[in-house]
Amino acid sequence: VDIKPYSLSHLKVALFSAVPRPHGKSLAHRSELKQAKRIVVKLGSAVVTRDECGLALGRLASIVEQVAMLQNQGREMMIVTSGAVAFGKQRLRHEILLSQSVRQALHSGQNQLKEMVIPVLEARACAAAGQSGLMALYETMFTQYSTCTAQILVTNLDFHDEQKRRNLNSTLHELLRMNIVPIINTNDAVVPPPVPNSDLQGVNVISIKDNDSLAARLAVEMKADLLIALSDVEGLYDRPPGTDDAKLIDIFYPGDQQSITYGTKSRVGIGGMEAKVKAALWALQGGTSVVIANGTHPKVTGHVITDIVEGKKVGTFFSEVKPAGPTVEQQTEMARHAGRALASLDPEQVSFLLPQYGRVLKYLIPQDVFSREGRSSPLIDRLSLSSAKLNSLAIGLRQLAVSSRDSVGRVLRRTKVANNLELEQITVPIGVLLVIFESRPDCLPQVSALAIASGNALLLKGGKEASNTNRILHQLTQEALSSHGVTDAIQLVSTREEVEDLCRLDKLIDLIIPRGSSQLVRDIQRAAKGIPVLGHSEGICHIYVDNEASIDKAIDIVRDSKCDYPAACNAMETLLIHRDLLRTPIFDQIIDMLRTEHVKIHAGPRFASYLTFSPSEVKSLRTEYGDLECCIEVVDSMQDAVDHIHKYGSSHTDVIVTENEETAEQFLQQVDSACVFWNSSSRFADGYRFGLGAEVGISTARIHARGPVGLEGLLTTKWVLRGAGHTVADFSEQGSMKYLHENIPVPQKGFS
Amino acid sequence: VDIKPYSLSHLKVALFSAVPRPHGKSLAHRSELKQAKRIVVKLGSAVVTRDECGLALGRLASIVEQVAMLQNQGREMMIVTSGAVAFGKQRLRHEILLSQSVRQALHSGQNQLKEMVIPVLEARACAAAGQSGLMALYETMFTQYSTCTAQILVTNLDFHDEQKRRNLNSTLHELLRMNIVPIINTNDAVVPPPVPNSDLQGVNVISIKDNDSLAARLAVEMKADLLIALSDVEGLYDRPPGTDDAKLIDIFYPGDQQSITYGTKSRVGIGGMEAKVKAALWALQGGTSVVIANGTHPKVTGHVITDIVEGKKVGTFFSEVKPAGPTVEQQTEMARHAGRALASLDPEQVSFLLPQYGRVLKYLIPQDVFSREGRSSPLIDRLSLSSAKLNSLAIGLRQLAVSSRDSVGRVLRRTKVANNLELEQITVPIGVLLVIFESRPDCLPQVSALAIASGNALLLKGGKEASNTNRILHQLTQEALSSHGVTDAIQLVSTREEVEDLCRLDKLIDLIIPRGSSQLVRDIQRAAKGIPVLGHSEGICHIYVDNEASIDKAIDIVRDSKCDYPAACNAMETLLIHRDLLRTPIFDQIIDMLRTEHVKIHAGPRFASYLTFSPSEVKSLRTEYGDLECCIEVVDSMQDAVDHIHKYGSSHTDVIVTENEETAEQFLQQVDSACVFWNSSSRFADGYRFGLGAEVGISTARIHARGPVGLEGLLTTKWVLRGAGHTVADFSEQGSMKYLHENIPVPQKGFS
Repeated sequence: VDIKPYSLSHLKVALFSAVPRPHGKSLAHRSELKQAKRIVVKLGSAVVTRDECGLALGRLASIVEQVAMLQNQGREMMIVTSGAVAFGKQRLRHEILLSQSVRQALHSGQNQLKEMVIPVLEARACAAAGQSGLMALYETMFTQYSTCTAQILVTNLDFHDEQKRRNLNSTLHELLRMNIVPIINTNDAVVPPPVPNSDLQGVNVISIKDNDSLAARLAVEMKADLLIALSDVEGLYDRPPGTDDAKLIDIFYPGDQQSITYGTKSRVGIGGMEAKVKAALWALQGGTSVVIANGTHPKVTGHVITDIVEGKKVGTFFSEVKPAGPTVEQQTEMARHAGRALASLDPEQVSFLLPQYGRVLKYLIPQDVFSREGRSSPLIDRLSLSSAKLNSLAIGLRQLAVSSRDSVGRVLRRTKVANNLELEQITVPIGVLLVIFESRPDCLPQVSALAIASGNALLLKGGKEASNTNRILHQLTQEALSSHGVTDAIQLVSTREEVEDLCRLDKLIDLIIPRGSSQLVRDIQRAAKGIPVLGHSEGICHIYVDNEASIDKAIDIVRDSKCDYPAACNAMETLLIHRDLLRTPIFDQIIDMLRTEHVKIHAGPRFASYLTFSPSEVKSLRTEYGDLECCIEVVDSMQDAVDHIHKYGSSHTDVIVTENEETAEQFLQQVDSACVFWNSSSRFADGYRFGLGAEVGISTARIHARGPVGLEGLLTTKWVLRGAGHTVADFSEQGSMKYLHENIPVPQKGFS
Repeated sequence: VDIKPYSLSHLKVALFSAVPRPHGKSLAHRSELKQAKRIVVKLGSAVVTRDECGLALGRLASIVEQVAMLQNQGREMMIVTSGAVAFGKQRLRHEILLSQSVRQALHSGQNQLKEMVIPVLEARACAAAGQSGLMALYETMFTQYSTCTAQILVTNLDFHDEQKRRNLNSTLHELLRMNIVPIINTNDAVVPPPVPNSDLQGVNVISIKDNDSLAARLAVEMKADLLIALSDVEGLYDRPPGTDDAKLIDIFYPGDQQSITYGTKSRVGIGGMEAKVKAALWALQGGTSVVIANGTHPKVTGHVITDIVEGKKVGTFFSEVKPAGPTVEQQTEMARHAGRALASLDPEQVSFLLPQYGRVLKYLIPQDVFSREGRSSPLIDRLSLSSAKLNSLAIGLRQLAVSSRDSVGRVLRRTKVANNLELEQITVPIGVLLVIFESRPDCLPQVSALAIASGNALLLKGGKEASNTNRILHQLTQEALSSHGVTDAIQLVSTREEVEDLCRLDKLIDLIIPRGSSQLVRDIQRAAKGIPVLGHSEGICHIYVDNEASIDKAIDIVRDSKCDYPAACNAMETLLIHRDLLRTPIFDQIIDMLRTEHVKIHAGPRFASYLTFSPSEVKSLRTEYGDLECCIEVVDSMQDAVDHIHKYGSSHTDVIVTENEETAEQFLQQVDSACVFWNSSSRFADGYRFGLGAEVGISTARIHARGPVGLEGLLTTKWVLRGAGHTVADFSEQGSMKYLHENIPVPQKGFS
């Protein structure tokens, strides 16, 4: 039996001491929470106990798991826990029930059980009865992670008496030094019960009235970096949760306190939200960062603490430093508002704005906006805005100016519903787009131009490595927008914001467009909660060479499809060859060409079975090589090729090479992919080559836009009905009106 | 302190005995698992232990929580557990490390720790050391749920000796009778270690070689109804997981065993998948149902056991009774296949098929297809297919036949990309639709006709209360389809299938359309994983009466919008009134009309502030009353009305009543809803009234279809490119070709 060395924390107790750590101001941003070394985790009674009064065992175990993990990372963890009263309650109640029931059973038979009186239990007695069991449970659980615990019971007097305070302080430091997790609780058995709803005495003094103030006091006393206060609320809302527009506050600054409306009746008497906030602000002033979050949500409790420490947007983060700019939520609001103004601009104004934007970019971009130091030359290529890039950008913008003329507000359908009742279906922008792009900063002006042309508000999230370039490009973009009073329609999201957090803003963002690697697309598709993502993560494209194919066309198309740009999503991955072509010149010539082009060939199972010495067999017929590699497989017929494509393809782009028109048309009809081609390279699957003007991306989704997506993919429609007091009652059997539903012709796109 | 009576299980020990239960055959369907009274839960070592050798505490706690919950429901639960070896390993290793390190520290200072040799531990010693700790942990955990546990250690010999077997049996029965959870483990400290990869001796004999066979043997011995075997695999796959097309088997029948290909090397030596299946089949033959599932997935472990008992599709269910029909996965495959044939039918054929379908329905439906007994008369109304319903259905089908002519395969865009290179964007069906509808069976033929007209495959899931009617309607539908060889394109899903399970089939289904209450839509939107849902869950529609409104139009429109059908999603919920109208005749007349129509009025905060005696103030301005109730609020201007609608509306349908055309046009332009009307009732927001022929539903989504959705909402597009050997290299700077991108006119919808 082989055992990997795992946790040496037990040993640290004997051999190491904790490294001393300077204590300064509270941490300013969520991203800095990773650095927190000393952390106090406060578990409210709602976290520790279940509704039925017992302990929430699974929840507690996963919290212990997280605390132990952070402890094993070398952090110093302390727990302030509730739950002794509830634990004791359950225990005492059972004792009483059992003794009562036995007595009853002896005296009066079995069926009297319902009438049993359950006595009202006194909280202090419960606390006394529960404390030992609660600690035993913590100890059992932490033992699983080789972590020692220690029990500390305190009363408010311990903080008032200087000598006691110092003793407590040095005990806790000693425990932390020995890598032990102190578990702190109020000594409920001896202290007077806390007074519900009584106020804390200002922010400079804090009295220990509940576990929130206890945790705050301890955290400051111990110079903790972070206090995580878990209860059954998500965090702090700007008004009582449940009322219209109540919003969870992501980051709370002491100065913002006036903007909060607390509920008149807090559901939790002791430790209600106002008390929590006071305690948090007190801790913050003392140099400890605070996060208030929900520790009872079954789906997140398993990682709520580690998520907070990793800087994710969980609950409400209390920070002393208010960042200069607006929050991403405010940015979205600003963008949506200005976006509506953008959408109502005259088409003439837009087609003037776009070339102007191109000129601004071309002449105002400084030569060098990023540091080349320590960067590889391909990265520098991707990052730099060469004059060639800027030139083609300017050309693109002029083209876009033309195609934007009839994009927003175009009438798609016009119907005379009845006399004086006319219906129009017109194109309108989708709303707020979030575009997430990687290192290429030229994506920013391209996407911005598409947003301008389609009247959409836009949030841009670029990579950190091009943050300078992106900032300058964004300033120039707003410069161009400002001339039409729509400056805020395009917003650059701070690099501090995590992509994953942005993908959760389903109430704010209408469509996400990832621009980058297929890994990026996959990650975003996974992270997006309730927001559609435009894009595709796979491009497994097939070329089927029919038995009636022309040799020359087959060779040209296969070469172009595979070798023109092997990393592209529209490059060929699998070559399907009709069985009749095996051991014919056309087959040999294709193989020779692939060898000449240094394409590594993998054999499909059927192809391999035809050969004496076959190349390496494919692991999966569903592979996207993205390189000078491809799979060759043999099929019996065009129909067989279609079946193969349906089974193993990704519905991106599939091609038939044949001289037989009937075969070709059947293939084009049957193959169920976004792009289906006859006698042309798969590489034509591209917005620019299709003549769409600009490309938003290629979609393999089956709803909304499919295939290469141009401006139209950024538009939706609305129905406009103009009447003269019409009601549906007019059209009832007794009514005076009849539906006409006459279609009225509308001008076609591209011909207006 | 008030305590609710919670679990009396402790008392049952003393006072009650378990009710005896007859044991018959294994349960045939997942839905019957709810009835399972006696359940064995087997926890594989992967479930109980973590990678780092310790116990998986959070996981174990949530499993204990579920077992205790089921026990408290009155079921008899037994646990077969692994983990003693791992538990002991960790314990022994720490002891050894600690003693070694102290020795090293004494001899050679602190930094030699890395060189420490960790000894190989013997499994039996580990088991001996771990057993007590493991049991203590189970006991601590179960105590939290007032549940007693008992430890049973067995060896294979205990089953061979008849006397021992009887003793074990009666001990277990006695424990169950006393409501105690027996926790069973192999006595690893004394038995020879199990032989890896050795086969079980046929299905009639089973030797205890691992915990799978132990659990199976025990389950049958104890006449358990259900054995849940949890390990780190999702269940049984039809071929080795990870290979192309490996599929998780939902229900496995003994006869299907030949269709399984096991991996040559099972990752888990002992208790590998083949052994698990043999043990499961053995238990099944003995009358115990079996489910094999994953107990290590962090997101589902918290409810895997209760989900299985509730009949949800988790893991692989072993059943002796093979249902007559295909599985839903097979149905989807059949539907997709036949759907492709349907999509390739000639438009003439489709427009012949639809009226024929109408005739089949009209003449072949038997008078009474459901029992009226014990049903309320509104339900009978909803369920019955009156001749009026059938008549309007037949009319609808004839209309659909006309509009279907240019739906599939319609050219939306045609571009001459270059000489001999022509691009078309054509409409194609979306693929496989899942329509979930509630009690109205007339939904079935309507939706089927839409699927036929749009060439989509269709899965229908109707309510249980109309299952007879639905079955007959579906038979008639297939009858009509069979004449064109596409019988299978429309499938009726068994009532046994859970909606939630269907919503997870993201690889099979392309679009879900819920037809029913807004609660149904919300539930499905929540349940759908990675499948788009077409529909809307909210309709908060506004009528804004401008200060320049005509009195008559305002009264007619408000009355029609609110009272024509108050439960409809396009009914008015909020009436916005321009401030200047307060205390004018127009205002009084509107209020009088609403009173006459018995509409209950709620006041918005501003409206309330204008009144001396106001009606009840609204709880939220975002309320959908769905009844003869509405909210009235005062706004300062058209712009203020627009802002109110953006803030509180649901982007469904919003109306302005005004005689000022300029104000109206600004409202129509600015309001960002699916339908925006001028001087007409909100009730016109409807596919039939819009002249779309048939209505799929109303969508408030911002991508794909928006507003009332007709046939077009069931279509997507594909790009067809026809070339003559074109490659993109031809168009490079050195190439011979130039892009032309000339638009070619295409015929307009409705004018062909």
